[in-house]
Amino acid sequence: MRGRIYIKTADPSAAVQCTIRIFGISSVSPAKLTTSDLTDITKTALEIAENTLGNGNSFAVRCHRVGEQPYTSLGVCREIGSQIQSKLEKKKLSVNLTKPDHTLSVEIRDEQAFVYAETFHGQGGFPLGAQAKTVCLLSGGIDSPVACWMVMKRGSPTVPIYVDNNPYTDERAQQKAVETAKKLKEWTAGTPNKIYIIPNGENIRLIQEKAPEKFACLLCKRLMYRIAERVAEKEKAFGIVTGEAIGEQASQTIANLLAIDEAATRFPIHRPLLGFDKTETEAIARKIGTFQISTKKAQGCTAAPCQPATRAKLQAVKDAEKNLNMDEMAQKAVEAAQLLQF
Amino acid sequence: MRGRIYIKTADPSAAVQCTIRIFGISSVSPAKLTTSDLTDITKTALEIAENTLGNGNSFAVRCHRVGEQPYTSLGVCREIGSQIQSKLEKKKLSVNLTKPDHTLSVEIRDEQAFVYAETFHGQGGFPLGAQAKTVCLLSGGIDSPVACWMVMKRGSPTVPIYVDNNPYTDERAQQKAVETAKKLKEWTAGTPNKIYIIPNGENIRLIQEKAPEKFACLLCKRLMYRIAERVAEKEKAFGIVTGEAIGEQASQTIANLLAIDEAATRFPIHRPLLGFDKTETEAIARKIGTFQISTKKAQGCTAAPCQPATRAKLQAVKDAEKNLNMDEMAQKAVEAAQLLQF
Repeated sequence: MRGRIYIKTADPSAAVQCTIRIFGISSVSPAKLTTSDLTDITKTALEIAENTLGNGNSFAVRCHRVGEQPYTSLGVCREIGSQIQSKLEKKKLSVNLTKPDHTLSVEIRDEQAFVYAETFHGQGGFPLGAQAKTVCLLSGGIDSPVACWMVMKRGSPTVPIYVDNNPYTDERAQQKAVETAKKLKEWTAGTPNKIYIIPNGENIRLIQEKAPEKFACLLCKRLMYRIAERVAEKEKAFGIVTGEAIGEQASQTIANLLAIDEAATRFPIHRPLLGFDKTETEAIARKIGTFQISTKKAQGCTAAPCQPATRAKLQAVKDAEKNLNMDEMAQKAVEAAQLLQF
Repeated sequence: MRGRIYIKTADPSAAVQCTIRIFGISSVSPAKLTTSDLTDITKTALEIAENTLGNGNSFAVRCHRVGEQPYTSLGVCREIGSQIQSKLEKKKLSVNLTKPDHTLSVEIRDEQAFVYAETFHGQGGFPLGAQAKTVCLLSGGIDSPVACWMVMKRGSPTVPIYVDNNPYTDERAQQKAVETAKKLKEWTAGTPNKIYIIPNGENIRLIQEKAPEKFACLLCKRLMYRIAERVAEKEKAFGIVTGEAIGEQASQTIANLLAIDEAATRFPIHRPLLGFDKTETEAIARKIGTFQISTKKAQGCTAAPCQPATRAKLQAVKDAEKNLNMDEMAQKAVEAAQLLQF
């Protein structure tokens, strides 16, 4: 009703814990329901005040009204305020309308009234499904699950893709990607419930064999985008999400982002972490529960060069691709994909 | 020296206020310099403790050493800790190594020692110029200056572009864009120091005349990207920054981002606010000083349709462009650009 969802529950604290994780919910207030009769409202407010306000605390009363009642909002605040001060005299409470320790809120809607003293911040964003679908390149590292979560938070269901560079990485990297995908599922009622595992080892071998070493990561990224585009088409998705942040890795400098972005011609690449520092990304990773998984030990990619290009020219990168049939490599990898459901 | 910059100053608090705004600086600690002689260090630490610690406070002493000294780090901590407790007995201080009210830090480097009790958070990121240049579409609204600032924070100098839809907007929108650009300059030693003002009113008129009304904003966005690409080329920049956030406006749904992104073929579009809620963007806008400017009154674009498309098909948008010579329109607008320097 008008930007509010009411949940009747015998276990308010469990309901809070559950609802503050739901995307699209801005805040949650466990409230007591009563009639819009001023005596009832005041009685309920007194009960809540007794349980909430500590000795010496300051408080404020706020009131919103919808409908016709025989009193004003200000009248409600004054009545409750004076009743609290007289009935709870022992607590030596004071009224503070600008920065109170506690705020008692009364929301009156026609015949009903909701009284509450606590508000918990939710995740904000939009309900999952409010936006069209995306695919997300999950690497097993710290950043990509955070990027995925942020796009989910803004309403887009995402389908994770793990590009498996085995034997240049090991099994543990894949396990981490799968585990983070499962952890992301805990934030929703059911998605993501699958992850594409795309074998890419043979492609890496070809890149190593046929392209300048310094471009290895850039070509690998361009290949991943092409793979993601094919999965996005298959999934009828509308964009590709990555965990890239400006300057976070050699392949993610502003200059190199130009050189790799060009490979994704059919879908936009969404990089919600672009402007983040690592510490900011890590803070979200901790909050959403993926940090512990992402920081487990795994073999880093052994195909990464010691001296990667940090300011690659697009034309040089495209020239380096000429000995490789990147489209075919992407196509073959996607055809060999394993779809893991959970 | 090894991740540290030392600044000698007679006015530490002014130095703090200045340096915590510099991109690339993680934190700032006003310190007293002394010799690495333990008596000197202890004397300095005592002076600082006397000024910093309040009655009943808990404290901890931390020590880092580089070089050869006739004491251990632990020895330094113990000596200072016990001296503080005995010399400042009146303050009834206690030692708390896990969650102290104050931490006294000693950093010893060969013959020198730095003693400090305060650390201020900086902006993090990278020094401006560590990354290649970008251009940024500044609209006069709340979001785009924040996006610009975040990319600047990650090291990329940006050149602002204001696409002027006058007479569909008014002079005030342009003033806001210029003022926010000037505000962003306050975060750096000199950039941005110019803004491109691109006349776009005639183009909007053509779009209104020749394309379905529901696509007006999408076509305008696609035109802006083309304009930005041309300015990026001129400026030898490597990407285009925008303030778009998923679902924040009709033109910014995941589906529509696909339909507009396709127009930028030569440069990546960087959207650092993609995953942000409006409240998160506003919090940064307040911090960086642009909020007050962006929220000044101005005429919103009167060419925006009442019922804009929220899930436009790319092909339909491209078809709608067929009656318009978008490349020529972009080219002409850029040729008529006014470069405002400040």
